[in-house]
Amino acid sequence: MKKYSFNVKANDGFARLGQIKTSNGSINTPAFMPIATQGSIKFTPIEFIKEIGFDLILSNTYHLLLRPGLKVLNKFDGISRFMKWDGPMLTDSGGFQVMSLAKFRKISKEGVKFQSHIDGSTHILTPENVVDSQNIINSNIQMSLDECLHYPASFEDSKKSMRLSLNWAERARRRFLDTKKNKSDAQFGIIQGGIFKDLRIESIKENTDIDFDGYAIGGLAVGEGHEMMKEIVKYTTPELPINKVRYLMGVGKPKDIIIAVENGIDIFDCVIPTREGRHGNAYTNYGIINLNNSKFSNDLNPIDEESTYYVTKNYSKSYLHHLLRINEPLGGMLVSLHNLNYYNVLMNKIRNAIRDKKFNTFKENFLL
Amino acid sequence: MKKYSFNVKANDGFARLGQIKTSNGSINTPAFMPIATQGSIKFTPIEFIKEIGFDLILSNTYHLLLRPGLKVLNKFDGISRFMKWDGPMLTDSGGFQVMSLAKFRKISKEGVKFQSHIDGSTHILTPENVVDSQNIINSNIQMSLDECLHYPASFEDSKKSMRLSLNWAERARRRFLDTKKNKSDAQFGIIQGGIFKDLRIESIKENTDIDFDGYAIGGLAVGEGHEMMKEIVKYTTPELPINKVRYLMGVGKPKDIIIAVENGIDIFDCVIPTREGRHGNAYTNYGIINLNNSKFSNDLNPIDEESTYYVTKNYSKSYLHHLLRINEPLGGMLVSLHNLNYYNVLMNKIRNAIRDKKFNTFKENFLL
Repeated sequence: MKKYSFNVKANDGFARLGQIKTSNGSINTPAFMPIATQGSIKFTPIEFIKEIGFDLILSNTYHLLLRPGLKVLNKFDGISRFMKWDGPMLTDSGGFQVMSLAKFRKISKEGVKFQSHIDGSTHILTPENVVDSQNIINSNIQMSLDECLHYPASFEDSKKSMRLSLNWAERARRRFLDTKKNKSDAQFGIIQGGIFKDLRIESIKENTDIDFDGYAIGGLAVGEGHEMMKEIVKYTTPELPINKVRYLMGVGKPKDIIIAVENGIDIFDCVIPTREGRHGNAYTNYGIINLNNSKFSNDLNPIDEESTYYVTKNYSKSYLHHLLRINEPLGGMLVSLHNLNYYNVLMNKIRNAIRDKKFNTFKENFLL
Repeated sequence: MKKYSFNVKANDGFARLGQIKTSNGSINTPAFMPIATQGSIKFTPIEFIKEIGFDLILSNTYHLLLRPGLKVLNKFDGISRFMKWDGPMLTDSGGFQVMSLAKFRKISKEGVKFQSHIDGSTHILTPENVVDSQNIINSNIQMSLDECLHYPASFEDSKKSMRLSLNWAERARRRFLDTKKNKSDAQFGIIQGGIFKDLRIESIKENTDIDFDGYAIGGLAVGEGHEMMKEIVKYTTPELPINKVRYLMGVGKPKDIIIAVENGIDIFDCVIPTREGRHGNAYTNYGIINLNNSKFSNDLNPIDEESTYYVTKNYSKSYLHHLLRINEPLGGMLVSLHNLNYYNVLMNKIRNAIRDKKFNTFKENFLL
């Protein structure tokens, strides 16, 4: 019995507090998704993710297709049982990874042919087989296949690519509706159009005609910078349907998230907390600190004295510095967990601020 | 307030059930110590070690001297607070690591001069400064400095080395007793003598005259093989005082442990469960399985269907195979945890068998 719904429960300006319901549980929005690229959060037992309190995680169709492959996932009736995450899961479509990782890609109207970055084997993604794959992965929320362009791209290239993604979107939606029974709860379309307002608006119009269950803004966080991203989010988001989830893909830093929430975005994903954590960079209320710095070798205090999270409270900066220095993976893992908890607390604060109609004050204090 | 005691509670043949008390808690023996080489169990948050149920862990003086160094450990008043392990800890003396790791070592009557395997810096270990270092590390049980020989070694070399270790043992004991106030609970001596019975007996006699709080059999598990080790343990152990802990250093595989317990050994340490785990080798009641093997890619079952340990129960062989294949450290960590739990369960079974006077039956079933 699959079920999906999204309700906006409160507004503060354009910022909104909402709840997504899926057959694996509900998600309070605005929400941040940790990334389980290949069916695991890097270095991290999944229990820690549940404990921190994340509602929703993301996994990558591109990676899962290559390893462990659909045959294995099919045996498990999907990724939940495979990786032992029983909460809601969103999977991307692979379009972004084909652009950023594959050794070679060739795009045609039919789909995209590419060579695996691991062993050079050839694969084809089509709008239809990406739905079929995600049905096997059995995620709660699917993304439709899109073409992602490298930044910067010309108006002509951006237009051509956006039109192709729209054609794919229609086909993906048709396949999703044809196979929906007993499969994923929902499918989101992806707005493209690069840095060009006209193209973004055109993409929104036609994507909303297709009538997805939610909409993502794609093609950002690819090098355009904070100001450009802010501008695009500002003019794009108001055009999206108010009763559907809005997802800003690949974003981002805390201040990017806050600006996007202010403009009405509901969900986010980003590698920053885990990747930065693995490299020893810890987010704090007073900025980012690099625990590799030798000045921390004698520091008996935790990363954040006010945190109630036991991983943060338990370990000194000196110990974390030591683990990083001896290349012990536990060090990166503990700092990643600290960062993930920081993000989760941030999203809690954001939701509380919207509920209390104090989002603007929260934002101004945060960005100070 | 430091306190240390050891009581034998039951015997079954030469095998014995006992309890060590330290100021950080008690240890049921026979006991196995996981190894926190550099102040962390590799890849593993310390909570997992507590959860599995280990009473005692080991850390390496040699490694801790080099990193984080005594200055840092002194600030934390010892390693417990640094690494957040509040249970009992034993530290070795560094003699073995100087032999196996250091770039260069020069032994004199005074002590051993060596170059760090990390940065080539020069250090000196003396029987006295090794006690002082372990006082700063603030472990519950210290080991006295010994010289370790490469295997094989001649009678003459073994004798000379054993005599030197005895000289060091006397000096180490004197320093320990002089500095005992508010420091470690206990200090163990180390029996040397290579593969020569006369030398081993001589080493025991003089070590017991020095009157340590416990005795280790050193210089084994260095390549002499199971049969030779068994023989040496067989003739050495009965000569050790019955009211003191007997520790077989660096051992071992489950069958080595069982044979040693049969001969009256009380405590063990070994890297096998964690090192093998990191490489994907899992201990089971039906032998060792290599989870890297592609035959496990489709295996939905856990490593051990009968295990009650949630890490073992929770994950399929297929998922663990996948994590190992993608070089995700989480894979090695989960298999290590499985192995550590296997060892802890083994020690429980051993203790129960001694208590029930069924150790022989247990041993025969196990070795079948």
